[in-house]
Amino acid sequence: MSDFFNGLGPIKYEGPTSENDFAFRRYNPDEVVMGKPLKEHLRFSIAYWHSFAWEGGDPFGGRTFERPWYPQDEMDNARLKADVAFEMFTLLGAPFFCFHDADVRPEGATFAESRDRLNEMADIFERKMDETGVKLLWGTANMFSERRFMSGAATNPDPDVYAYAAASVKACMDVTHRLNGENYVLWGGREGYETLLNTDMKRERDHAIRFLQQVVEYKHKIGFKGAILIEPKPQEPTKHQYDYDVATVYGMLKDAGLEKEVQVNIEQGHAILAGHSFEHELALATALGIFGSIDMNRNDYQSGWDTDQFPNNVPEVALAYYEVLKAGGFTTGGTNFDAKLRRQSLDAEDLILGHVGGMDTCAAGFKAAARMLEDGKLEEAREARYTGWNGEPAMQMLEGTLEDAAARVEAEGLEPQPVSGRQERLENLVNRYL
Amino acid sequence: MSDFFNGLGPIKYEGPTSENDFAFRRYNPDEVVMGKPLKEHLRFSIAYWHSFAWEGGDPFGGRTFERPWYPQDEMDNARLKADVAFEMFTLLGAPFFCFHDADVRPEGATFAESRDRLNEMADIFERKMDETGVKLLWGTANMFSERRFMSGAATNPDPDVYAYAAASVKACMDVTHRLNGENYVLWGGREGYETLLNTDMKRERDHAIRFLQQVVEYKHKIGFKGAILIEPKPQEPTKHQYDYDVATVYGMLKDAGLEKEVQVNIEQGHAILAGHSFEHELALATALGIFGSIDMNRNDYQSGWDTDQFPNNVPEVALAYYEVLKAGGFTTGGTNFDAKLRRQSLDAEDLILGHVGGMDTCAAGFKAAARMLEDGKLEEAREARYTGWNGEPAMQMLEGTLEDAAARVEAEGLEPQPVSGRQERLENLVNRYL
Amino acid sequence: MSDFFNGLGPIKYEGPTSENDFAFRRYNPDEVVMGKPLKEHLRFSIAYWHSFAWEGGDPFGGRTFERPWYPQDEMDNARLKADVAFEMFTLLGAPFFCFHDADVRPEGATFAESRDRLNEMADIFERKMDETGVKLLWGTANMFSERRFMSGAATNPDPDVYAYAAASVKACMDVTHRLNGENYVLWGGREGYETLLNTDMKRERDHAIRFLQQVVEYKHKIGFKGAILIEPKPQEPTKHQYDYDVATVYGMLKDAGLEKEVQVNIEQGHAILAGHSFEHELALATALGIFGSIDMNRNDYQSGWDTDQFPNNVPEVALAYYEVLKAGGFTTGGTNFDAKLRRQSLDAEDLILGHVGGMDTCAAGFKAAARMLEDGKLEEAREARYTGWNGEPAMQMLEGTLEDAAARVEAEGLEPQPVSGRQERLENLVNRYL
Amino acid sequence: MSDFFNGLGPIKYEGPTSENDFAFRRYNPDEVVMGKPLKEHLRFSIAYWHSFAWEGGDPFGGRTFERPWYPQDEMDNARLKADVAFEMFTLLGAPFFCFHDADVRPEGATFAESRDRLNEMADIFERKMDETGVKLLWGTANMFSERRFMSGAATNPDPDVYAYAAASVKACMDVTHRLNGENYVLWGGREGYETLLNTDMKRERDHAIRFLQQVVEYKHKIGFKGAILIEPKPQEPTKHQYDYDVATVYGMLKDAGLEKEVQVNIEQGHAILAGHSFEHELALATALGIFGSIDMNRNDYQSGWDTDQFPNNVPEVALAYYEVLKAGGFTTGGTNFDAKLRRQSLDAEDLILGHVGGMDTCAAGFKAAARMLEDGKLEEAREARYTGWNGEPAMQMLEGTLEDAAARVEAEGLEPQPVSGRQERLENLVNRYL
Repeated sequence: MSDFFNGLGPIKYEGPTSENDFAFRRYNPDEVVMGKPLKEHLRFSIAYWHSFAWEGGDPFGGRTFERPWYPQDEMDNARLKADVAFEMFTLLGAPFFCFHDADVRPEGATFAESRDRLNEMADIFERKMDETGVKLLWGTANMFSERRFMSGAATNPDPDVYAYAAASVKACMDVTHRLNGENYVLWGGREGYETLLNTDMKRERDHAIRFLQQVVEYKHKIGFKGAILIEPKPQEPTKHQYDYDVATVYGMLKDAGLEKEVQVNIEQGHAILAGHSFEHELALATALGIFGSIDMNRNDYQSGWDTDQFPNNVPEVALAYYEVLKAGGFTTGGTNFDAKLRRQSLDAEDLILGHVGGMDTCAAGFKAAARMLEDGKLEEAREARYTGWNGEPAMQMLEGTLEDAAARVEAEGLEPQPVSGRQERLENLVNRYL
Repeated sequence: MSDFFNGLGPIKYEGPTSENDFAFRRYNPDEVVMGKPLKEHLRFSIAYWHSFAWEGGDPFGGRTFERPWYPQDEMDNARLKADVAFEMFTLLGAPFFCFHDADVRPEGATFAESRDRLNEMADIFERKMDETGVKLLWGTANMFSERRFMSGAATNPDPDVYAYAAASVKACMDVTHRLNGENYVLWGGREGYETLLNTDMKRERDHAIRFLQQVVEYKHKIGFKGAILIEPKPQEPTKHQYDYDVATVYGMLKDAGLEKEVQVNIEQGHAILAGHSFEHELALATALGIFGSIDMNRNDYQSGWDTDQFPNNVPEVALAYYEVLKAGGFTTGGTNFDAKLRRQSLDAEDLILGHVGGMDTCAAGFKAAARMLEDGKLEEAREARYTGWNGEPAMQMLEGTLEDAAARVEAEGLEPQPVSGRQERLENLVNRYL
Repeated sequence: MSDFFNGLGPIKYEGPTSENDFAFRRYNPDEVVMGKPLKEHLRFSIAYWHSFAWEGGDPFGGRTFERPWYPQDEMDNARLKADVAFEMFTLLGAPFFCFHDADVRPEGATFAESRDRLNEMADIFERKMDETGVKLLWGTANMFSERRFMSGAATNPDPDVYAYAAASVKACMDVTHRLNGENYVLWGGREGYETLLNTDMKRERDHAIRFLQQVVEYKHKIGFKGAILIEPKPQEPTKHQYDYDVATVYGMLKDAGLEKEVQVNIEQGHAILAGHSFEHELALATALGIFGSIDMNRNDYQSGWDTDQFPNNVPEVALAYYEVLKAGGFTTGGTNFDAKLRRQSLDAEDLILGHVGGMDTCAAGFKAAARMLEDGKLEEAREARYTGWNGEPAMQMLEGTLEDAAARVEAEGLEPQPVSGRQERLENLVNRYL
Repeated sequence: MSDFFNGLGPIKYEGPTSENDFAFRRYNPDEVVMGKPLKEHLRFSIAYWHSFAWEGGDPFGGRTFERPWYPQDEMDNARLKADVAFEMFTLLGAPFFCFHDADVRPEGATFAESRDRLNEMADIFERKMDETGVKLLWGTANMFSERRFMSGAATNPDPDVYAYAAASVKACMDVTHRLNGENYVLWGGREGYETLLNTDMKRERDHAIRFLQQVVEYKHKIGFKGAILIEPKPQEPTKHQYDYDVATVYGMLKDAGLEKEVQVNIEQGHAILAGHSFEHELALATALGIFGSIDMNRNDYQSGWDTDQFPNNVPEVALAYYEVLKAGGFTTGGTNFDAKLRRQSLDAEDLILGHVGGMDTCAAGFKAAARMLEDGKLEEAREARYTGWNGEPAMQMLEGTLEDAAARVEAEGLEPQPVSGRQERLENLVNRYL
């Protein structure tokens, strides 16, 4: 045991009236909701990068944290970091974690060394996972931090970088497969452009699509049963990313012929930066049949960059889980906290409290969403609005021609009268469950 | 002849040194560029709605303009408006115009009356088009202003509104066909939602897609040779429109099986509101093979709504036309000024000057774009960046598997070295042509 | 009694478990919190304009509502509208209302007629206020809708418009005084510019300041005891408004010498459009000593214009009231619902339900804020962070010179060590009170 | 001589038709405009930080550049960096440069060591400035990168950090004074907050004000003749900075009693992030009498963070310089390129070309602005709009009371008639000078 958390014991559920900072008030992992314990619904996951690899820097300042596993370019420290990470997973009772290759091992002098280090860390993870019961929600390759990827990975103008990206993904998929990861995620942080002046968008998009096909083919080859997920983001670090939002990714999947093979991992902050609400992206992914998993955080509404804060607004989270539940809940997916401490939150305790607050917020939101869905009033009202479409004539109209539909207007003397959309009434109704 | 323009004669090209407000300085319609007169490249079109139907209102104030064709709910005034409109088209030497049904005729007491009035106005247009040589770039149906469409047209919860929309589009397509319109445009101003709480997004999206199929089928049935165009916009009036941006429309077209049948009409202001540059949307549409036409305006960069101002920034316009030229230029499409006067610009003269400035800006931008393309330095630099991809090994890598690509890294000892993207150098180069 | 609300009786408090749409769940007007009934803390007010004058139009569509008091340019209808308005105030148990001159009376053919009509309506209001006990939170003059104000009121290039604005404000102040209004509000919807090219910003700003001084002088002259409030907004309708945000207004008040005479009426939606959180504007106004009142609504975070929706997010509202309570609560100010129905919410019931939901949200938020403040943990933590500044040496440092302060560094060997800001811990703490 | 620029000779003016990448096309330093050579108008300055200290990192990736003066924590490398910096200033013919303490010297183990290193570098600068004729536009202290400043400098909850900030500023002012800097700049990168929950805004604002007073007192004490400038920025790195924009800074200066002592250094990118146009901030500063200097760059209009790109849009730059010229041009201020290469622009040549392009863009814009002003048509039109205000009655109205002004309406039967604002005509006029 490291002493990083100063002997702090596991976080327990103590109920809403507890005054203990280090307790859950809303998240009781074993509470049964809609027939299943909360922990199986929410499938919380801790992100290795924000909690253990990020050092508190921002564009105007360097490292603020001081962790015993710094500097991170030494394998000994990587091992210490893993110790602390699994201690935290256990403390929080988080059933899952997620990582990039670059989070868990220092870059090697060569690709082979980097891969060997990754495999060495995977051995450690394997053992720790056995010991703790913590599972891998997903693995992924960091193809945006090293300068070799500055102009993209699969979309790089240099084909050698495409090869390097292929090798990186293969190594990470192999490890993810070995660790029984439930998903493999691709986020194209540099798969985009800074300026159209030096960019062949069609070619780069084609390469991104081909790369994705190769990834899916490889998944089947090795028998990986997890889902392949793409995580949309509109921009940052690039001016424009090719996986801009759910709708954009869908168009690419259709062109790739992969809309049945690949799903999306949707992040609240990325949705906001793309001009959407989180629930919009969730609802759209469900409508398109490509909903996979979520990166749970919140983005400051007044900041134009990815702030990756812990969620703390229960009503917002409730609307998100409502869409998740309407999608049937998670299968391979889960609630990954892609959230980081504020860089002024220096203490080990802050790391715990950020997650405790996030987990409580999610639990409260989820339970409200479940009540909404079980009560059924909201869905009933929504469906009632479309009643007209369930009739035979309406269905025939969709099957017929424009002229047929048009002909009804004069034949039947149609003068459609608007009906209240009742938005405020429904918003009030939502508040009853919160 | 109305006396609306106080005897102002046709606007002539007088060259860059002219001090006459009512002259073109940069737009010489007959100047030959890349083998064709400018007027055939630019294909300018005047938007009936902003120039003749809009009365100067905004969300905080009513009508500011005073036009002799007000009130607009009388057919006599509709006829006077048409007189003035064609006088302006002729004064400006604009080869095209565009209209919504609701711009040109007052709403009738019944659908039949509305349609008959539209047909009556089409008779007038037909005669005026013959007399003046002005042509119709596109027609479209306004399915967002009347309260019957408040919850959508094809995506309305009430199937009768779908029928009404079908009748409206049919009537407008018939007129557009009769007037030899080069395109028919669909903009789904209310095809979206205010709140997910009362919305069945999947169903609404399915209806939007089916409607579009019916439109295309009808086009073929009547032998309309023009293109069917969709005009993306992210929001406003709705919180979210289903035709959000080019990428979103593409996904819908794929689902509809219409990606070869339907193109996009891209507006600068809509691109900006969706978080994209204008040239991004143009380049993406070209990459996807769905580029059709443009709505030319500019949006105030500090305003979060559609400001529809006349373009006046030549460098920005040049980058847009550069993408148009790379797409092969317009075929059925053109440069439609979807731009309106500021509501304080009360005079008939302002209406002329807004367009004169816009046409000059477009001409200057277009000519710069043509110089860039003809000179070839920019394309040369762009292509050089991807040279590595033209080699056999790179092409094979795309055809092969992830493992093949990955294997190259160690087999060939790949250590890709970043190469400068030279953005500033290319930006300087662009400025040489301006 | 009009039959507009179909015999609906007064909305009563029925507690959190009520399933009645037409009941308060969280707002019990007589519940005593921090020594005072909720109704005296919250001081709810209904905005005449959104609820009774606005017809459901937006930039892309016209009237959607159908009210018995349309068309609004007839005095009979103005009287009917007043009947319904007071019925609604009473139904909701709202202690206050607010109005613009233009909301309550049709524009006359001359200024004198407009003023006489306003006075006539004031007579009616006076009687109704007596009968119902409803009071006037504030009056204000609409100097943005009529075309005469298109280029500004006090900042108009035409001095005659300045005079007209003076007459308008005088008439409204007279009426507000007569009706014992608790405040008089100025919102400069057109006091700004569309383009700097035609604007003399210094001159316009000087005129705005002089006008404000004249208003304050007039207030004292007539013995009006209410507060004069300015309502900041960054833009919309103009590209830039001179009363951009709280900080901007403060600079103007300092130049006017009125920082002790004038306060601000802060609107959530306007704060958001200016790039601030609502609580920022409240906290800043308090820090500057100019906090007055609030316009309560919410703005869609993905829309770039003023959406004026009813508040429904309790945690957000709680943070706002926390700042209000830290400012000492309202004195002349109150919670004015500057919120409008969505334009698809057509029914009289929607009008009631929008307000019921807003009032419940505010009550829940306010009570949470009161708990936070009474419990004191949050303020304690906040103050503890600044403990060092309470010491004598720190206070001396502020009084001394830069050199004195600098000298301490080497004299005392200062090496300041960062301390955790504990943001997540405090955010968790806030959630305990919600 | 280092060989960093590979023997590249000084950049010369070769005129618009030059095809040499390494030549000025629009910037002829000796060209006389409005009675003065361009170089004396524009007063170009190179920012040490972006060009020499920034290593190409962004929030998602580390260093991309490879410079011979890395690692930067060694004094030898600091000296080499200075050699290259002055070579570049000379190559570009830039008359000025700017720096933060942290750009030019590695942080020492103690404050004293840091200061001694700064002084040692100042000795070197002094000699190089003598040799090259390059002058110091301004110096400034970096009080945002080191972790000690993570919670603010003058606004830190820890008074020791205030002391440390005082020592830092004193050391930098001393050096700036010794090097005959024309200004001293304060940018409060961390003078703001992340969350109001842990922030005492009033106290922090008071400290910021007191610190500024101490700075001004110290300036007078040491006889520094340069101007003290504040550089507004709304946010980033903090959620909210206290020097949000020009209007906010003005209110603080009024409270400090320093509105005659302190001016603003306005950055294009910061204006944009605050929701303003660059020219707005310039015009407002001029109207308030606090215009000082500019940080010239551009911000990507679709990115929500500070992109600090080299300016390349001549029309935009022209509007900015038009405001500078109307303010009387620069006195102590200048055009500082607070612009950085894209992180993919790796080569020494890119560093030169970024500046060459920026200087050409500024020169072209400035000359256009001068033509506009000299021609006078724009100012004439603007002034004509306010003619009414020059009359005696209008001036009296401002001096009189609200009642006097109001009385005119009926006495004179005022019915003000709107007059066209002619925005499009003026925009066309501007384009004639470009």
